[in-house]
Amino acid sequence: MQNILIDADTGIDDSIAILFALKQPGVRVVGVTTGCGNTSAAQAAENTLRLIHLAQPPYNVPVAIGANAPLVGQWDGPVPHIHGNNGIGDVELPVSPQKPLAEPACDLIIRMVRKHPHQLTLVTLGRMTNLALALEKAPDIVPLVKNVVFMGGTLHHPGNVSPVCEANLAGDPEAADLVFRAGLDLTMVGLDVTMQVRLTAHHLDMLEKYAREENRPIAAYIRQAMKVYYQFNRLQNNCLDHCPVHDPLAVLAAVDPSLVTIRRAPARVECGGTFCRGMVVADFREHPIDAPYLSICTEVDARKAVEKLITAFT
Amino acid sequence: MQNILIDADTGIDDSIAILFALKQPGVRVVGVTTGCGNTSAAQAAENTLRLIHLAQPPYNVPVAIGANAPLVGQWDGPVPHIHGNNGIGDVELPVSPQKPLAEPACDLIIRMVRKHPHQLTLVTLGRMTNLALALEKAPDIVPLVKNVVFMGGTLHHPGNVSPVCEANLAGDPEAADLVFRAGLDLTMVGLDVTMQVRLTAHHLDMLEKYAREENRPIAAYIRQAMKVYYQFNRLQNNCLDHCPVHDPLAVLAAVDPSLVTIRRAPARVECGGTFCRGMVVADFREHPIDAPYLSICTEVDARKAVEKLITAFT
Amino acid sequence: MQNILIDADTGIDDSIAILFALKQPGVRVVGVTTGCGNTSAAQAAENTLRLIHLAQPPYNVPVAIGANAPLVGQWDGPVPHIHGNNGIGDVELPVSPQKPLAEPACDLIIRMVRKHPHQLTLVTLGRMTNLALALEKAPDIVPLVKNVVFMGGTLHHPGNVSPVCEANLAGDPEAADLVFRAGLDLTMVGLDVTMQVRLTAHHLDMLEKYAREENRPIAAYIRQAMKVYYQFNRLQNNCLDHCPVHDPLAVLAAVDPSLVTIRRAPARVECGGTFCRGMVVADFREHPIDAPYLSICTEVDARKAVEKLITAFT
Amino acid sequence: MQNILIDADTGIDDSIAILFALKQPGVRVVGVTTGCGNTSAAQAAENTLRLIHLAQPPYNVPVAIGANAPLVGQWDGPVPHIHGNNGIGDVELPVSPQKPLAEPACDLIIRMVRKHPHQLTLVTLGRMTNLALALEKAPDIVPLVKNVVFMGGTLHHPGNVSPVCEANLAGDPEAADLVFRAGLDLTMVGLDVTMQVRLTAHHLDMLEKYAREENRPIAAYIRQAMKVYYQFNRLQNNCLDHCPVHDPLAVLAAVDPSLVTIRRAPARVECGGTFCRGMVVADFREHPIDAPYLSICTEVDARKAVEKLITAFT
Repeated sequence: MQNILIDADTGIDDSIAILFALKQPGVRVVGVTTGCGNTSAAQAAENTLRLIHLAQPPYNVPVAIGANAPLVGQWDGPVPHIHGNNGIGDVELPVSPQKPLAEPACDLIIRMVRKHPHQLTLVTLGRMTNLALALEKAPDIVPLVKNVVFMGGTLHHPGNVSPVCEANLAGDPEAADLVFRAGLDLTMVGLDVTMQVRLTAHHLDMLEKYAREENRPIAAYIRQAMKVYYQFNRLQNNCLDHCPVHDPLAVLAAVDPSLVTIRRAPARVECGGTFCRGMVVADFREHPIDAPYLSICTEVDARKAVEKLITAFT
Repeated sequence: MQNILIDADTGIDDSIAILFALKQPGVRVVGVTTGCGNTSAAQAAENTLRLIHLAQPPYNVPVAIGANAPLVGQWDGPVPHIHGNNGIGDVELPVSPQKPLAEPACDLIIRMVRKHPHQLTLVTLGRMTNLALALEKAPDIVPLVKNVVFMGGTLHHPGNVSPVCEANLAGDPEAADLVFRAGLDLTMVGLDVTMQVRLTAHHLDMLEKYAREENRPIAAYIRQAMKVYYQFNRLQNNCLDHCPVHDPLAVLAAVDPSLVTIRRAPARVECGGTFCRGMVVADFREHPIDAPYLSICTEVDARKAVEKLITAFT
Repeated sequence: MQNILIDADTGIDDSIAILFALKQPGVRVVGVTTGCGNTSAAQAAENTLRLIHLAQPPYNVPVAIGANAPLVGQWDGPVPHIHGNNGIGDVELPVSPQKPLAEPACDLIIRMVRKHPHQLTLVTLGRMTNLALALEKAPDIVPLVKNVVFMGGTLHHPGNVSPVCEANLAGDPEAADLVFRAGLDLTMVGLDVTMQVRLTAHHLDMLEKYAREENRPIAAYIRQAMKVYYQFNRLQNNCLDHCPVHDPLAVLAAVDPSLVTIRRAPARVECGGTFCRGMVVADFREHPIDAPYLSICTEVDARKAVEKLITAFT
Repeated sequence: MQNILIDADTGIDDSIAILFALKQPGVRVVGVTTGCGNTSAAQAAENTLRLIHLAQPPYNVPVAIGANAPLVGQWDGPVPHIHGNNGIGDVELPVSPQKPLAEPACDLIIRMVRKHPHQLTLVTLGRMTNLALALEKAPDIVPLVKNVVFMGGTLHHPGNVSPVCEANLAGDPEAADLVFRAGLDLTMVGLDVTMQVRLTAHHLDMLEKYAREENRPIAAYIRQAMKVYYQFNRLQNNCLDHCPVHDPLAVLAAVDPSLVTIRRAPARVECGGTFCRGMVVADFREHPIDAPYLSICTEVDARKAVEKLITAFT
């Protein structure tokens, strides 16, 4: 059994990643923490609670609300053209009886790491603010974390909020750099790989066709939520009824590392500049900078990844 | 006949580039302008004059001294561990009877562009300060320039002054960005290709073996100058009696564009940040930034390039 | 400072790996354990002591003798046609005043892991017998080991003792499989990458030319020891004055993970069969076997690796 | 006219391969022999007779029943979850008036090879038991066989019955090794290529749309039979309404060798081991084992292959 804690700014692709984690055999989600990004931290928690209610896992999944602003500066507000007004494509999922914890996100992270020493994988799907706050508050947890897999950044693939920057890291560069400097076993699932994996309209057909009875509402949700997301990806990236698989790939790679190919290098996050604030700076020189090594996913078995994603619901 | 004007901070690899241009059939060097970088602008001019004297071209090559500081900030001073105390590996070439022009570098650039409208290729081997000053002073020359080929920058290859930055652009980011924004036909010969082309001790043997009688002093000069350069490349990059071919490849690509593979994208130069000041920001997204397209060399026929370089002297 | 413990059957390439580790800045070798393979465990210890004496590290490096037989069956005896009669190409290095520990190899491994919890990298260059014995005797050290990097095995490259098997794993498949099953952070530096990195006669020239004064005896040793090794590689693999870099690459990858590209999969070692006894069985299927994930090096920056190796002595 | 004899354990993909062979212009199927595997040898013959009846070739195609067990051990029984209860996806094809020969499969092989000396291509789509028995009984036919193309084995692609083994070879390793040792012109169409070629739901639509009038029942059969096969491939390999093209590709490669890229090496079949029994052991070393060369398909023009397959019916 693999324990994972997910930190998310629960938008559309986050929601699929969370549903996958809840449904994938052999995986136990010990908690979900939320932050701002695709939507507010509070709305992200509300979405997450409804998604857990939809998935009906056979165990309790605590949800904690986290930072609603990056370490430096303010949150720009939600992105309804990408994720709808409510963050999950304006789908009205049934309200969950579960409430978020009173405990802030960073405390839940700290508590769960200590509860599962060397046995907990952290997967961040949004900005790294909550994880950074946890590491600031309790730096002693670093050696207790099994590993961290994050969706974010890019090495050579074009960025999505600047020519060279990805949104999750650009959304809180200081937090990301703090995590990069902490000395964790850290794996980056960035645009180099997430843009290679596509969820197509055909895949949605397959999902509906093959979803287990209990997962039909999930399939229906995904199809509905994808409408907004497909439209954005078409307008932004010329994607014709398909979209890249960002957040779910981070969970997939955490669960099945055979999906990706990895290169390692000392890395930092650029916190200044006009185009580069939030950029991953990985150093492959003979005499690199003094920074912990980052594991960077450079290739992915795209077919295997996307079909594993869908198969979790069938 | 192809007219080229070279702007150089005449160090060791610049010197080989200049000698190649002077010796390559079909090429006429209409002038050399100098700036600070590998050495001072004045020393670069002195070196250039002696190199022209060494090469004995059958026509006059005017030399003009340019900027001894970047547009913003100061020059850090010479780099004797790379290029020797005099910029050309401490080789004492015979003094030339020729003197530099009184005219500043940027004025020579403007004058030569106007003299050869649509017929002049500018090749910059150092910082882009002189070219930027020329464009500021006479923006009307932009449409008169045939094309510009510059050695500098990097797309995906590690940098040489930071994990992601190359020295020529990092030495004057504001000048480079001004050139990038000007709307010229601009080709970047950066580390992605220059690091693929290696001048080995074996090549130097071949050069000596096959140099024409008149070029034996050139071959002797190159072997001697390479000593310092090989040593630096060994200490910096673990290169064992070989070195990358930076500046000569820019002239080679200007003279024979078949050597390189090109990708084009709107591009700017990052002028801020800790790791990224001076970085080339090329935008390969579906909806790129509003900037002129840059032609970026991504692949090179390395054997063809280096053997063409040596063959010019044989 | 990176702590490493090396387990070796100190033959020619092991000796270069050990010398590299002793000379590489930032690395501290906390001990060397020896086993049979290229030579006997006792001779391997004798060779190791002389190599340490040759390298003169500014700290004490304890040496412990380990298993002289695999877990199952017998050792086939030395391979003088590959490594000379004494394991290090019949070079007669000066005798060291240091003696091996009375403590067996597996106990030194256990002791050092406990002394440096989460801070010790184990690098095995021969069979995994000693490490397997340590894990059998003290399974509690598994979570205390930082990581293990081993030279051995092959994924897709041809083997060297059968079409599909490499000597270190084929020499003790049961030990290797025990290590594979233990749940360590385990990286395989196998023939897929070691055969891509070549140490040429030219490199030896460079080593002699650039070795620091104190390292001249090392350069002389390497040149002399290489004679036997080059001859074997010529006869066995048609290598004309060069050889693959096996054992040193494991230390290189342990010290600088940026050199290699990695894929991960659940893996076991085949312990039966005619051609396949000792083969690495990595499972990239959708529903893989239940085994810990192995990190498999699939690509290497060959130039960077070999020049980093030589540069440690310059 | 190319004469081929097919040996099959007539399951779903075998059936498409046989139908293709019967419909492909320029090909004459001189006989079909059957063995156990996907179904029993007798049921495979029954399926084959009905397929021939469905295809209505303008000549007689004799069918002979062969071995119902491997050379060593027992047959594990049919695999209804892959090929349905009757081997052809539970499709009830019309009964054929033709009966199987009284002659056993191996005798038909021997007789046909002698009847078409140097003019007959053998294509095996299941275990190699029948061919091995023929070679044992009449070793003199080896030089009379034009060539053998078999579906089975894998070089670098993951296996389907173990991490490294494919079902046809693992089903009778001793038979396969006997064939490998015989000295035939032997081509392996294994998972390295068959997994690259996908028959999708879209292809089935195209087949129905473009099938010639006389081939409509074939198109209907294929669509129906594919239901079971798609389901298995979905459950086993997460394939969403597509499947790899195993057996048809062997016939395709026999008929049009331009479809595949081949590497040749001496090869044997491992007959022992836990994970490797039935594995292809190809030796690409400088000094390989003493075994006949095997031609191994490593790449395939996937689009060309699958469209040629479908086009045979249009």
